[in-house]
Amino acid sequence: MVTTHHLEDMDAHSYQDYASTGQGLVLVPTGATEQHGPHMPMGVDAMLSRAVCSAVAEDLGALVAPAFCYGYKSQPRSGGGNHRSGTTSLSAQALILQTRDVILEFFRHGIRRVAVVNGHYENYQFLYEGVDLAVREARAMGLEDSRAMLLSYWDFVDDTTLEAVYPDGFPGWEIEHGGVLETSLMLHLHPEKVDMSRAPAHPPAELTPYDVFPEDPARTPSSGCLSSPAGATAQRGELLLHAVRSGITRAVTSEFGK
Amino acid sequence: MVTTHHLEDMDAHSYQDYASTGQGLVLVPTGATEQHGPHMPMGVDAMLSRAVCSAVAEDLGALVAPAFCYGYKSQPRSGGGNHRSGTTSLSAQALILQTRDVILEFFRHGIRRVAVVNGHYENYQFLYEGVDLAVREARAMGLEDSRAMLLSYWDFVDDTTLEAVYPDGFPGWEIEHGGVLETSLMLHLHPEKVDMSRAPAHPPAELTPYDVFPEDPARTPSSGCLSSPAGATAQRGELLLHAVRSGITRAVTSEFGK
Amino acid sequence: MVTTHHLEDMDAHSYQDYASTGQGLVLVPTGATEQHGPHMPMGVDAMLSRAVCSAVAEDLGALVAPAFCYGYKSQPRSGGGNHRSGTTSLSAQALILQTRDVILEFFRHGIRRVAVVNGHYENYQFLYEGVDLAVREARAMGLEDSRAMLLSYWDFVDDTTLEAVYPDGFPGWEIEHGGVLETSLMLHLHPEKVDMSRAPAHPPAELTPYDVFPEDPARTPSSGCLSSPAGATAQRGELLLHAVRSGITRAVTSEFGK
Amino acid sequence: MVTTHHLEDMDAHSYQDYASTGQGLVLVPTGATEQHGPHMPMGVDAMLSRAVCSAVAEDLGALVAPAFCYGYKSQPRSGGGNHRSGTTSLSAQALILQTRDVILEFFRHGIRRVAVVNGHYENYQFLYEGVDLAVREARAMGLEDSRAMLLSYWDFVDDTTLEAVYPDGFPGWEIEHGGVLETSLMLHLHPEKVDMSRAPAHPPAELTPYDVFPEDPARTPSSGCLSSPAGATAQRGELLLHAVRSGITRAVTSEFGK
Amino acid sequence: MVTTHHLEDMDAHSYQDYASTGQGLVLVPTGATEQHGPHMPMGVDAMLSRAVCSAVAEDLGALVAPAFCYGYKSQPRSGGGNHRSGTTSLSAQALILQTRDVILEFFRHGIRRVAVVNGHYENYQFLYEGVDLAVREARAMGLEDSRAMLLSYWDFVDDTTLEAVYPDGFPGWEIEHGGVLETSLMLHLHPEKVDMSRAPAHPPAELTPYDVFPEDPARTPSSGCLSSPAGATAQRGELLLHAVRSGITRAVTSEFGK
Amino acid sequence: MVTTHHLEDMDAHSYQDYASTGQGLVLVPTGATEQHGPHMPMGVDAMLSRAVCSAVAEDLGALVAPAFCYGYKSQPRSGGGNHRSGTTSLSAQALILQTRDVILEFFRHGIRRVAVVNGHYENYQFLYEGVDLAVREARAMGLEDSRAMLLSYWDFVDDTTLEAVYPDGFPGWEIEHGGVLETSLMLHLHPEKVDMSRAPAHPPAELTPYDVFPEDPARTPSSGCLSSPAGATAQRGELLLHAVRSGITRAVTSEFGK
Repeated sequence: MVTTHHLEDMDAHSYQDYASTGQGLVLVPTGATEQHGPHMPMGVDAMLSRAVCSAVAEDLGALVAPAFCYGYKSQPRSGGGNHRSGTTSLSAQALILQTRDVILEFFRHGIRRVAVVNGHYENYQFLYEGVDLAVREARAMGLEDSRAMLLSYWDFVDDTTLEAVYPDGFPGWEIEHGGVLETSLMLHLHPEKVDMSRAPAHPPAELTPYDVFPEDPARTPSSGCLSSPAGATAQRGELLLHAVRSGITRAVTSEFGK
Repeated sequence: MVTTHHLEDMDAHSYQDYASTGQGLVLVPTGATEQHGPHMPMGVDAMLSRAVCSAVAEDLGALVAPAFCYGYKSQPRSGGGNHRSGTTSLSAQALILQTRDVILEFFRHGIRRVAVVNGHYENYQFLYEGVDLAVREARAMGLEDSRAMLLSYWDFVDDTTLEAVYPDGFPGWEIEHGGVLETSLMLHLHPEKVDMSRAPAHPPAELTPYDVFPEDPARTPSSGCLSSPAGATAQRGELLLHAVRSGITRAVTSEFGK
Repeated sequence: MVTTHHLEDMDAHSYQDYASTGQGLVLVPTGATEQHGPHMPMGVDAMLSRAVCSAVAEDLGALVAPAFCYGYKSQPRSGGGNHRSGTTSLSAQALILQTRDVILEFFRHGIRRVAVVNGHYENYQFLYEGVDLAVREARAMGLEDSRAMLLSYWDFVDDTTLEAVYPDGFPGWEIEHGGVLETSLMLHLHPEKVDMSRAPAHPPAELTPYDVFPEDPARTPSSGCLSSPAGATAQRGELLLHAVRSGITRAVTSEFGK
Repeated sequence: MVTTHHLEDMDAHSYQDYASTGQGLVLVPTGATEQHGPHMPMGVDAMLSRAVCSAVAEDLGALVAPAFCYGYKSQPRSGGGNHRSGTTSLSAQALILQTRDVILEFFRHGIRRVAVVNGHYENYQFLYEGVDLAVREARAMGLEDSRAMLLSYWDFVDDTTLEAVYPDGFPGWEIEHGGVLETSLMLHLHPEKVDMSRAPAHPPAELTPYDVFPEDPARTPSSGCLSSPAGATAQRGELLLHAVRSGITRAVTSEFGK
Repeated sequence: MVTTHHLEDMDAHSYQDYASTGQGLVLVPTGATEQHGPHMPMGVDAMLSRAVCSAVAEDLGALVAPAFCYGYKSQPRSGGGNHRSGTTSLSAQALILQTRDVILEFFRHGIRRVAVVNGHYENYQFLYEGVDLAVREARAMGLEDSRAMLLSYWDFVDDTTLEAVYPDGFPGWEIEHGGVLETSLMLHLHPEKVDMSRAPAHPPAELTPYDVFPEDPARTPSSGCLSSPAGATAQRGELLLHAVRSGITRAVTSEFGK
Repeated sequence: MVTTHHLEDMDAHSYQDYASTGQGLVLVPTGATEQHGPHMPMGVDAMLSRAVCSAVAEDLGALVAPAFCYGYKSQPRSGGGNHRSGTTSLSAQALILQTRDVILEFFRHGIRRVAVVNGHYENYQFLYEGVDLAVREARAMGLEDSRAMLLSYWDFVDDTTLEAVYPDGFPGWEIEHGGVLETSLMLHLHPEKVDMSRAPAHPPAELTPYDVFPEDPARTPSSGCLSSPAGATAQRGELLLHAVRSGITRAVTSEFGK
């Protein structure tokens, strides 16, 4: 049997040994099924959060839960908008309940430290509610020492890395959907799933500081990318992953102890 | 870019071309994160439903959605019971809403035929409610020709295959959890994830015709398997997959047309 | 005042005496409002589960709660399908919440042992969720010794009885809707509510191993029965009731003590 | 087969003939499982609303649905309070969803006129929400002529009847729980279920114009009755039923036509 | 900084000093956004419950929470019906959850006594459910001494005041919507928001003892008032406020202590 | 009667005239009840979003709905965290349902353009879900031209204004809670509700790029402010309001037309 950090590849008896120590840590990667432009596959968000979790799990001897493959509705100001074909999203209540349920189960197993690693911007607040409900319920049920963290992986890219990845200046996270960051990470981790010959070259999306309902498709580029991924390289992806990995590892260690 | 039947590996522009024909078919594999004995990993149910979907998708030119990796609570009369370590389950409402949301999204894309392929017994009725809600809502919204199917893959194992796989007589689906069927399929599809040296050899579980709450752990074998997987072989897995694949392909064709 | 095992016929002061002993047992019959062919009334499922509960209550000195008269949506593979006229069903969430609420109330009264006796196949998994939620909540609220059982009455028909009732061989539970079992029980218990002159004589339904949405009415017999009730007799009904009564009485005693 | 106004006693084929005319009317009795003092059974509310529906159905050629046997939480200002033993209540959401689901089903069958006849004061507002949701949804689904009524049966007792039943003056509906009205109706309809020798003789409850949480049991009589049923007679019950029956029949005819 | 009884005008540090004593009392005014005839604004219900709370808070040294400005659907038998323009209502579930959440927060702060003061008839039962859920949850979480009251302010108008305000006889609360009581209170408290020249003069609405769905606008006066406010004066408003204030102050003191 | 842009101060007949033109625009201010440091009241967020709406309503001839006075749970990375005394928050589901319900009501009245103006950062995503559900439902019900906008007012502060308000450099929105922006606006709009003598002078909070559950109070300043409001002045508040007002007026005009 393979030795693995991934829960789905692990047998339950080995897991029980791990969980019952009371020292275990489970990382939960969350993504989406969402269009990511013509050059990248729709599973990017889950692939990247899963890869980040794998790397951190190696550093910390942690386990990685099966990724949340469906996420909250894509929004024009951070993704391409949920009117697009292929984007396959959950309602708020579905995502909140899934998050609450899954985390409560880990607490039931004896895991006391859970970190949710988000890879889809629009998920964050609904994950927040789900984690909050789970921790409250666990404590009400007598699992007093249950704790959790929630983070989005890109918040751990430090300034040095940003400068290296965006030598002409960082254009801002809000137009990163399908852009240099995600594409570089994919070129580093899953180059066979990226087709740079289809990468769009249009200027950055000009986003409005508000949302409209129903969405007007003319408000964002028809490519589905909010900025051009032209500057993406596997090497930059490696730099990004390194920064994110070490940043998250440090943060989790700092909060949860070694 | 890889040519693929898997939605998460596909770009949205290619998907849109597929979906907008109105002839598209999407298969949704559903599984669980559930203990499967000491010899198999916890992701078995999603792995198997995903593999079945891949095979059927090849036959029918269909697409496969990202698998539902978390399922409804494991029950002693079909799985090992939800009191076990590692089993990480959803509440009914979470699974129902996820199913409804995801299927409604495919209908929104222009897909008119969705088949949910279940790999975890306990999911079925909650998937049923989710699919029913989605089809009703789609039709109320004016997508009048939206249709769906729901099935569990093992219901397509024919008698000839059963006899070949269980030469000493088929002991019944209810004690198959972690047994010959699932283990054979895993040995055929993911042999590196099975460790037959850890396969339990105890007699079949004697199940009661009722459930108790809270579960009494003494009621099912401590291995987590409801019967011994000792007779499992990769060859039998191949037979099983062949039967399931052709059965489902026939059924889908019969209901949805070629 | 009548001496009764039925809660709705009992005064609250007598009930309180019973409940406050801590040794009380409440049986909850669950049924449906569902077509049962041209020869039987739509309340069959609740009538039968109620009758079974009455019999078991006599044996065990237990009480019978008011029956759940509405059940989950009828499905073609076990009932006639929910597209039929007369069938009047609940959504999953309504049935789950009703089950949770009612059982929690019995625990609040001091009852520590509740058994839900199901008479409508499609209810089972939603009752399961409701019972599970109630027992978890009761225990979180400090009612630590609260316990429950869940069963469907037909699962207690033993092989000897099956052979006596189906001398030509048992065709399987899945096509029993409106067939020999239910009709025999009704002929034994409520003969005035059965009109055998209207009993359909068609061959058994050929069920598919999958469901379709929306249902296609052509897939099941227009009578609403999945098999012919022609072999039903009151005597067979008596045999069936005897088997079910003694089986459930034994099971409840075995789990909950005398 | 018995000729009946009760849906649970009717076969689905006969019902379909009735429903498909588009002229059908279904009455839905709603009650509770609630303590009603030492002299009456806990099922009073459902028994009475069911009896009222039967009478009205005879007058109007209508059908009576299975009664809602569980109701919303008993409140001290109208019932005895939900802290009492035996009272077995639903949460708001369970009752709302059940009401919505059941009424939507009748609309699906072709019934266009549904009247909910309430027998438990505390149900009313939650029934209101359920009926409102059902009618809105039916109309959104294209069943444009779907209509419903909602009423509590005691609101149809006219002044002449009140004077006859309460020769010493009507003390007010709010303390009628377990009092002269309900007891008289039960003595008329189900005398074998009433034991007047156990009827409490205390003075009327002095209710506060507010509610407290959690309930203080000392605020209402320990008998569970809010006033003494001493004046109850079968004859007064007959008068009450007559008034209610004719009042509701007139109201339904007036709103829904003959 | 202003000295105030209103939570929204108070700083959190001062509030914390108040809440942490364990002796604090918070009053929660609830209203609606609902038509109140041509002569009064749509915010009447929240304005009046807020004014009542302010007065009581002065007497008791209590705090007043921000008012619930949206309420449950207006009904023809107590308000004008929810079909009217301007009336902007919540569903049952939204109001229940808001009530539960807000009260639980006060308990979390250390407040142990909360009184909800209702100003919109249709809210009452949904507030009841919300308060009940909050108190149950607080106690399950270990805040054992958490208590709450619920009342509608008009239930504290005594007979003497009624006679003074309605010298020709009190017509009954059920037709008070937009009538003498509310208009008098508004003339006393917010005369600049009332235009008596637009006050309708029609006879009292003749209400049916039942509800219909969908509402028939012809059943209630087109003015939106259920009775004429012609007799309203500021002086009568002052009398009413005085009666309500002293009645509620007495009731709260009696239940919660000084 | 006062002439007003505020719905709660308007009579329903005048509103109906406005709404029935089909050209109406309703602005919905949303805030929170949340600690805002020792120098400002807990109602700041609703006060400011309401003031912004009033100003925009004057420019556009729009109406302002009653403010949402309770918001989603305060988070340490944008507010002070929900563990603090005084902060009185809603769960996700309560806020989502309230938003959906209220907006659907405006659509029912004939209003076709609704703009939600947010004043509490943590509300945004839950408002988004509520608005999305309302617009979908309205369109499913046949109100095809129903449209909505959603925005947070601070997103309309332009760079010139930022430079004027923060001459030493803008420290970033994430630490603005209780800081210069909100305090300046309050000094301009409600100076009597601010006590600058209590304004904290500590350095800006050092926020982590992640959240922890349960919150650790030591992670944010005990004042409840994330940065010092020392630089706040009424004049800066006036500049800010001017920028926000003109920005939102332009945006709404651009999307919805004049």
